[in-house]
Amino acid sequence: MTIVPVELLGRRVARLQEAMAQAGIETLLVTELPSVRWLTGFSGSAGRALVRSTGPAVLVTDDRYTLRAKAEAPAAELVIDRTWGWLGDIRVEGSLAVQADVLPWAVVRELTDLLEDVELVPTSGLLAEVRAVKDDHEIAALRRACTITVEAFEAALGWIAPGLTEREIARRLLDDMTVRGAEASAFAPIVAAGPNGAVPHHSPSDRPVGRGELLTMDFGARVDGYHADMTRTVAVGAVGSDLTDLYDLVRRAQQAGVEAVRDGIEAKALDAVCRGVIAEAGHGADFRHGTGHGVGLMIHEEPFLGIQSTGTLRDRMAITVEPGVYVPGLGGVRIEDVVLVGHTDGERLTTASHDLIVL
Amino acid sequence: MTIVPVELLGRRVARLQEAMAQAGIETLLVTELPSVRWLTGFSGSAGRALVRSTGPAVLVTDDRYTLRAKAEAPAAELVIDRTWGWLGDIRVEGSLAVQADVLPWAVVRELTDLLEDVELVPTSGLLAEVRAVKDDHEIAALRRACTITVEAFEAALGWIAPGLTEREIARRLLDDMTVRGAEASAFAPIVAAGPNGAVPHHSPSDRPVGRGELLTMDFGARVDGYHADMTRTVAVGAVGSDLTDLYDLVRRAQQAGVEAVRDGIEAKALDAVCRGVIAEAGHGADFRHGTGHGVGLMIHEEPFLGIQSTGTLRDRMAITVEPGVYVPGLGGVRIEDVVLVGHTDGERLTTASHDLIVL
Repeated sequence: MTIVPVELLGRRVARLQEAMAQAGIETLLVTELPSVRWLTGFSGSAGRALVRSTGPAVLVTDDRYTLRAKAEAPAAELVIDRTWGWLGDIRVEGSLAVQADVLPWAVVRELTDLLEDVELVPTSGLLAEVRAVKDDHEIAALRRACTITVEAFEAALGWIAPGLTEREIARRLLDDMTVRGAEASAFAPIVAAGPNGAVPHHSPSDRPVGRGELLTMDFGARVDGYHADMTRTVAVGAVGSDLTDLYDLVRRAQQAGVEAVRDGIEAKALDAVCRGVIAEAGHGADFRHGTGHGVGLMIHEEPFLGIQSTGTLRDRMAITVEPGVYVPGLGGVRIEDVVLVGHTDGERLTTASHDLIVL
Repeated sequence: MTIVPVELLGRRVARLQEAMAQAGIETLLVTELPSVRWLTGFSGSAGRALVRSTGPAVLVTDDRYTLRAKAEAPAAELVIDRTWGWLGDIRVEGSLAVQADVLPWAVVRELTDLLEDVELVPTSGLLAEVRAVKDDHEIAALRRACTITVEAFEAALGWIAPGLTEREIARRLLDDMTVRGAEASAFAPIVAAGPNGAVPHHSPSDRPVGRGELLTMDFGARVDGYHADMTRTVAVGAVGSDLTDLYDLVRRAQQAGVEAVRDGIEAKALDAVCRGVIAEAGHGADFRHGTGHGVGLMIHEEPFLGIQSTGTLRDRMAITVEPGVYVPGLGGVRIEDVVLVGHTDGERLTTASHDLIVL
């Protein structure tokens, strides 16, 4: 585990305080665990934070984590408490903003009773928006996670063979990422052979991959809490032109998407780039999900790239670009990269080849 | 994936409806994913359910999951909708009970606007209590998960050796469980060597296990969504009497706990059995967590076994019994089994030996 430098933690709190000021928020209770980690550096499984208009964040955890909190979150004011009692002691005045998208109703009711003269104010997306722009520590962790993912993919090209089951391939990818330094798999790998490739979220089964089939692998490593997310579709033996045509189409759509990435492009415009290429080829209805999503301390986070998305890409956001085409009965193709948004272009962090690899 | 028999699904809905009637609840919105799965059989990653006083459950998911929902949840009324619109269409009358411990405030606000004449009623623990008592399908899945866990442990006795790092041991345990049929690891394995054993929730590090050290491994397989959870502490080479004494103490405490398990014992009484043995030996302050917890579709669920627990064990509950003693600077010992509660005793599902194994 790499400790987040204390000066970066300070800047994160300051960036949130700036966003709070713009939203007219004095005090914010943070209960979403990845946001607590982002703000304080603390990686334990139980934590809450409080941020006021100035000063350091308050980190609240329980006595299992005292040592870890001191080591990882040196900039935060540490409070050890399993209850909400500390929030009464801190004497919030006026109003307290909370993360309404995640805070359970039961806690809202408890806090309403506890903080008699304080008005609870629901907020949505404030932290997600600030967290979407990554700092140097985060980009370094994402790079390591993506590198491990690419290495595991390239190694797999040496051992994937007809007869291996989807489950076996998923298992070996996962294990190999751990050998190469991943702390865990970023999510349960998707491995889909032949017609199973037509199901975007297929769970690996005991079906073996056959010769002459496409094989789609969607997987990633987690490093220091940061998630890689890459998809490649390969051919196991030669495949027919219906499948190579499908592959070329998705490759063109994905490449167009990656080339369109830059600071200032609207999320829905980037989605439209990939969607346009696929629709023009008559497969519009077969691209059944959004073009991508942010990645960071969560595998799916802001910004989301879909038809109805409202955000705009900014320098230092990390996103996926992952168009796919899924044809029931035939199969599917998806190509996905993690792309770091820059001022004038995007940088693919998952650098594995986009050529159709025939094993 | 084993499909849950439709007659068992019907009985689960009926058991919940009985509990709802006792609590005076006509209609319950279920938003906690493991509870949605338990009620309907549906294992997808996005689902909600509605249960009325009679009739089948309504399952709501999105169009990615139409096929899976039909296959896994044949007894439920299926609704495909990403929004809350379906809840307006269903015309709830009077009041709607919700799971206040998990339902975000933002959703409560949205539903309040949507369902103008309906009163939202917060409930807590209703499903957790019903789910705590397992049916045949659940017990079979827990047995398989526990068997795989034991097999992986017994195989590890053949390959654990001085010089292997905690991370490497965790990786191999996890991979071996998958080879043996686990769909995933039930949780990130804890592997703690030597003095690291004094930290109950230690994350595996690059520290190698040395000769003459204790090694604590807390891990488990997941099968059909059900979680095994076993801890064993072994000696890597001969260890001193300070450590063997600690081991004997924890073994006695754990055995006393397992022997006390039966329908009707209070959760806090079971906790007191283990705690009493350890306190009598002067190590009361070194047993720094509860005696155990329920396991099922969640790795930690009702009933919880601690000093302040209020529940009572019932036939067919599945719990862990896991006392531990942690001595900073020296190390720690924990022994944990999954135990199925019976009418007059408990059955250990994790059957690996409790003797101190010296490798």
